[in-house]
Amino acid sequence: MNKSIYAGNHSFTVEQAAAADPKPGEVRLRVAFCGICGTDMHIFHGKMDARVKPPQTVGHEMSGVIEALGEGVAGWKPGERVTVRPLLSCGSCAACRAGFGHVCMNLNFLGIDSPGAFQQAWNVPARLLHRLPPGLALDHGALIEPIAVACHDVRRARLAAGEKAVVLGAGPIGLFVALVARARGAEVVVVELDEKRRAFAASLGFRVLASGDGVPADVDAWTGGIGADAVFECTAAPACALLMARLPRVRGRVVVVGIYSQPAPVDLKQLFWREVEILGARVYEAADFDEAITLAAEGSLPLEKMISARLPLSSIQSGFESAGTGMKTLIQCDAIA
Amino acid sequence: MNKSIYAGNHSFTVEQAAAADPKPGEVRLRVAFCGICGTDMHIFHGKMDARVKPPQTVGHEMSGVIEALGEGVAGWKPGERVTVRPLLSCGSCAACRAGFGHVCMNLNFLGIDSPGAFQQAWNVPARLLHRLPPGLALDHGALIEPIAVACHDVRRARLAAGEKAVVLGAGPIGLFVALVARARGAEVVVVELDEKRRAFAASLGFRVLASGDGVPADVDAWTGGIGADAVFECTAAPACALLMARLPRVRGRVVVVGIYSQPAPVDLKQLFWREVEILGARVYEAADFDEAITLAAEGSLPLEKMISARLPLSSIQSGFESAGTGMKTLIQCDAIA
Repeated sequence: MNKSIYAGNHSFTVEQAAAADPKPGEVRLRVAFCGICGTDMHIFHGKMDARVKPPQTVGHEMSGVIEALGEGVAGWKPGERVTVRPLLSCGSCAACRAGFGHVCMNLNFLGIDSPGAFQQAWNVPARLLHRLPPGLALDHGALIEPIAVACHDVRRARLAAGEKAVVLGAGPIGLFVALVARARGAEVVVVELDEKRRAFAASLGFRVLASGDGVPADVDAWTGGIGADAVFECTAAPACALLMARLPRVRGRVVVVGIYSQPAPVDLKQLFWREVEILGARVYEAADFDEAITLAAEGSLPLEKMISARLPLSSIQSGFESAGTGMKTLIQCDAIA
Repeated sequence: MNKSIYAGNHSFTVEQAAAADPKPGEVRLRVAFCGICGTDMHIFHGKMDARVKPPQTVGHEMSGVIEALGEGVAGWKPGERVTVRPLLSCGSCAACRAGFGHVCMNLNFLGIDSPGAFQQAWNVPARLLHRLPPGLALDHGALIEPIAVACHDVRRARLAAGEKAVVLGAGPIGLFVALVARARGAEVVVVELDEKRRAFAASLGFRVLASGDGVPADVDAWTGGIGADAVFECTAAPACALLMARLPRVRGRVVVVGIYSQPAPVDLKQLFWREVEILGARVYEAADFDEAITLAAEGSLPLEKMISARLPLSSIQSGFESAGTGMKTLIQCDAIA
């Protein structure tokens, strides 16, 4: 089988390797598609080498078909179409014991902390599988993981139908958050600096504001002076950290989705004044995968528009080199019918 | 009656005035004690003149006795011992309609936005009264308002018995938060820069840490590497804003009590990583006053130790000049038996 390897320093190689037999409790998947995530881009830029330890196969936004079952795997059979929730938790730390295994203190994130899906065959524990419904194409199935991120963020905000939400940042995650929030009945405004991304967000039917000093006044006008029910900070830009607590209503919620490498100034007086909540949100839980699959299968999300490019595994290097400019780049690892 | 007036620029005067009759729905109180709050100190330093509009009588942490009833006041009689929840909400803004009248968007904070209690007689709407139980002395009754702040903060943190809480700052509010948290069965560690305040917090039975770079490691050691269940930021110091998100466990809560005049850097990566919540908490609701009165009446809080000085109304100027150094300074407005 073909296998890509991140070799460090902006470089991927693709080589031949034997597909390993699945261990007890595991399945071997034939990987159909695997998307390039923002975290994969960080890896590509060499910023996560301490965690990834190149040479390593990365990738975690995938779809595929079960090829072989390891010993003791029940409830699954070869040929089933699946995606993987790529989080292996230890089960015994304080976070796991409290029911928050998705942010396990010893988390093994498949594709980061251990080998990932940018290869034709991938062995994973069967307990991480989620079945893809018949009507959902495999390329769209590779979007389930980022949609699950958005479902987690929206759930963390306790967003209700009819509420008004502001999404800061119209990258792939920001737009998935906006799409999931809208699918749940919220009114959504998207704020974005980049003109091309603004145009793309508008093409998805969102009201879009340019980033800048005028945003609080615009949100005020939109909400009749009340403020937004929820704000999703999906940029990790210091300007948005400063903005985020200025937009919610009394007891409004801010969900921090972006990953800040440095502490950033936050308007804590505004937080205090309106008793705002700021909530960190990281990855997803099983329920978020289930919801993402339901939303994707319903056809209410414009999944096809969110895919910018599909490239074969042999072109993974150029896929990473160009991935920053569009929405989702998918790497086709195996041409499964 | 005697009436103090904040004249602006670090200056109080005391003068004679006629006590006004209470309007319909109001009562006239004879004010026993009124404490000097951190907000009063801000007023004294001229930082809130836009809101206070001197010359004005300020003060809102009070106890007293009902002297006269305005038209239509039912359920109260002259001679009853009371304290006042000094928040007049509009009842019609979005915050009020959502049930958050304590942070009404048109809030009238008695003693700040309208005349306060540093005078012998004070007229207030009867609906803001809370009855003081027979066993609670009037000087201790003047502490109900800051204790209610602490009750609100602890309630906002959803603190449960047996949980571990870190309180940043051992000023009066920080210590009331620590005392209420302990009264609710939490284990509490207090972090404070000032050596005298550390010694005072220790005299109340708290484990005390010096502020500084070692705090995260100390909290880690205390919690077996898990992190604190709740953190209360009561300093409004940028160093503590930076620290606060580094101390909680996965899904731990940070309550921001201090009032920051400027945005301050927050460790948003740590917030994300452990899915921490940061909650703004401002003033109190009626339930917080009820709880504060219950706790004070039970005798489980060291109220006498929290009072640094008692001065007559004629000495209000020197009271404000020296209030920053100790815990609570009470001004005795009328010598009620």
